[in-house]
Amino acid sequence: MRDRYVLTGAKLATMEPGAPYGLIEDGAMAVQGDRIAWCGPADALPDSYSEWAAEDLGGRLVTPGLIDCHTHIVFGGDRAGEFEMRLNGASYEEVARAGGGIVSTVTATRAADLDALVAGALPRLDTLIAEGVTSIEVKSGYGLDRETELTMLRAARRLGELRDVTVKTTFLGAHAVPAEYANRADAYLDEVCLPTLRAAHAEGLIDAVDGFCEGIAFSAEQIARVFDLAAELGLPVKLHAEQLSHQGGSKLAAERGALSVDHVEYATEDDARAMAAAGSVAVLLPGAFYTIRETQLPPMEHFRAHGVPMALATDCNPGSSPLSSLLLTLNMGCTLFRLTPEEALAGVTCNAARALGLSDRGRITSGLRADLAIWDVTRPAELAYRIGFNPLHARVTGGKLETRT
Amino acid sequence: MRDRYVLTGAKLATMEPGAPYGLIEDGAMAVQGDRIAWCGPADALPDSYSEWAAEDLGGRLVTPGLIDCHTHIVFGGDRAGEFEMRLNGASYEEVARAGGGIVSTVTATRAADLDALVAGALPRLDTLIAEGVTSIEVKSGYGLDRETELTMLRAARRLGELRDVTVKTTFLGAHAVPAEYANRADAYLDEVCLPTLRAAHAEGLIDAVDGFCEGIAFSAEQIARVFDLAAELGLPVKLHAEQLSHQGGSKLAAERGALSVDHVEYATEDDARAMAAAGSVAVLLPGAFYTIRETQLPPMEHFRAHGVPMALATDCNPGSSPLSSLLLTLNMGCTLFRLTPEEALAGVTCNAARALGLSDRGRITSGLRADLAIWDVTRPAELAYRIGFNPLHARVTGGKLETRT
Ligand SMILES: [Zn+2]
Ligand SMILES: [Zn+2]
Repeated sequence: MRDRYVLTGAKLATMEPGAPYGLIEDGAMAVQGDRIAWCGPADALPDSYSEWAAEDLGGRLVTPGLIDCHTHIVFGGDRAGEFEMRLNGASYEEVARAGGGIVSTVTATRAADLDALVAGALPRLDTLIAEGVTSIEVKSGYGLDRETELTMLRAARRLGELRDVTVKTTFLGAHAVPAEYANRADAYLDEVCLPTLRAAHAEGLIDAVDGFCEGIAFSAEQIARVFDLAAELGLPVKLHAEQLSHQGGSKLAAERGALSVDHVEYATEDDARAMAAAGSVAVLLPGAFYTIRETQLPPMEHFRAHGVPMALATDCNPGSSPLSSLLLTLNMGCTLFRLTPEEALAGVTCNAARALGLSDRGRITSGLRADLAIWDVTRPAELAYRIGFNPLHARVTGGKLETRT
Repeated sequence: MRDRYVLTGAKLATMEPGAPYGLIEDGAMAVQGDRIAWCGPADALPDSYSEWAAEDLGGRLVTPGLIDCHTHIVFGGDRAGEFEMRLNGASYEEVARAGGGIVSTVTATRAADLDALVAGALPRLDTLIAEGVTSIEVKSGYGLDRETELTMLRAARRLGELRDVTVKTTFLGAHAVPAEYANRADAYLDEVCLPTLRAAHAEGLIDAVDGFCEGIAFSAEQIARVFDLAAELGLPVKLHAEQLSHQGGSKLAAERGALSVDHVEYATEDDARAMAAAGSVAVLLPGAFYTIRETQLPPMEHFRAHGVPMALATDCNPGSSPLSSLLLTLNMGCTLFRLTPEEALAGVTCNAARALGLSDRGRITSGLRADLAIWDVTRPAELAYRIGFNPLHARVTGGKLETRT
């Protein structure tokens, strides 16, 4: 594609304030290099663009490129065997004795080298890309030792080199306490997690720092120690909090100005107030809610009332959310959490960008990065309405237009 | 591909009795014309096949081609607007006043001609085919007048001509009472549904006859009248029954030797007994269960105890199940209904074949039709475990092998 061009015949879901979806029914936009040079109603397109190459989209819908702001897409092995054991009636204890649970993923991830981790993640990434995803967050957290955590983060960076997609990396050393540190979570933090965080940061591998604040993982006090080091290193934080019970992680994260607080099924109205004050995004993960058959809904009404931005993400991981479709996540957000289709789309565009600290994308307006998804649909709600159907027509990343084959 | 060939290096999920999935770990098979000539352990492959062309599958999994045995894939319009209205807080009454509900699909379907219905259904069909589907059932039931019901069935037949897929057509004139016959269901049956059934049969458009037995549709007595005519014409029957309440449809269907009874959330143990005695398949539709947020689970334990075969299908339709992924249906069957992965796979292969009266497919054994799906997975449970991921490597329909591009 040329270095500069105009898209005409476009229905633009700009996600800018104003009309629902920031919709411009008969829109046009100009792209120059990797940026949006202009966008607006077709009849307002300045004459100065008349000599640029133009492509007529025939009324197709254009949205910002989709952003999956919470994934664990790099891992070794899979958990299909455990999935089957459970459905055949095995108890959690029997599954654990058979080596199941997160332990099995840690074992398989430690056994994989960089190339194997990249090769395993690519089909999942390609599935997301085929749905119009242009930016994705990838967490570490299945190594739980220095070398494997570093390898996971290097694999995440490599993914961003191999594909036209922006990868934001998140250090999640405080994901679980590994077996060799059973009942010694603080020793794990001191001896492995915190030194590895320093080392990974020194190598330029970390864009944000995350943790899992839960009865089965780390307490708020322990997470605070990880966040202290993140602050010292100048890294933004985010947190898995209040997924299975209320542990106070949301409040801690908000106090530290977290980019996002994720899961949040058990968050309270006080938590929502604190998150709103901090500007933290609530990242909702309906794939995990669905897979573990959770019944506690996140407090959407409090998030709405207090103005907490809501994002949606796949949480793609081999245990609680083996989900690699962000479109299906939109549908789950509407069906399971009763988000409106507009909230759902904001959740994978403007609010997802905010959850990753990316201010240059997630909306369609001049000056932002030209990351777009072009769809064979007539209105935005269709993206959330259909289940297991991909209407992507083309994807634009940094101005580069690739029509789906 | 050649007229005869051997597949080696195959893990075969034959779905034959014996081992789970009828699995042959290191298997081979021979295909001649549109039939399976031989299948079994690789080391037992007779010497007589040594001169046939051979393709090494490198350990990939081979299953019977998938069968979607309950769809409403031919329709006009979509219901994304209504989906959005509801999530924005509109009541059912407000949606109905805005022209929503099945009425809107009937209106849009009546307004479409044959070509438009085919063009609308093809992307949905292609999505299913891309997941290894080789046979699909398609129902009428959005015309509710003579011409449109005939057009829907002709569109279904056309789909089978345009793609390498077997289409079985089902007449569903007794799907709903159209507005022009409000409160005159029996008059609708006499004046429209039954004469149209005769006409469509005379044109060779019907493979089976279905109905919707529910408080909001037709009573068991009314359905019996439709089944009487089906019997007179020598057509097999099936029924949407006990989806929202218990109306006695399962028992009626079993008495008439129905191929299947579908939805069945509210079926009782007595119903399961009757279905088992009749050999009727219980077709479970988790996509509708998920979409309408049903909480009443089908009585799987009764079906298991009494030996009722269970199938799974998308129920692809614009209202209660806008779902066009049979792989996702497998996952929903496991996650929502707690089917085992083996039950789920049987539900889209051997039991789905039975629900359509097809005795020449659904398993892998010599003499059956060579309809196969070849997968980039190491064990069958992976097909149900992953969510929104398509590991299809190739599809074989009537012996013709097509590698996925
Ligand atoms: Zn997570
Ligand atoms: Zn149906």
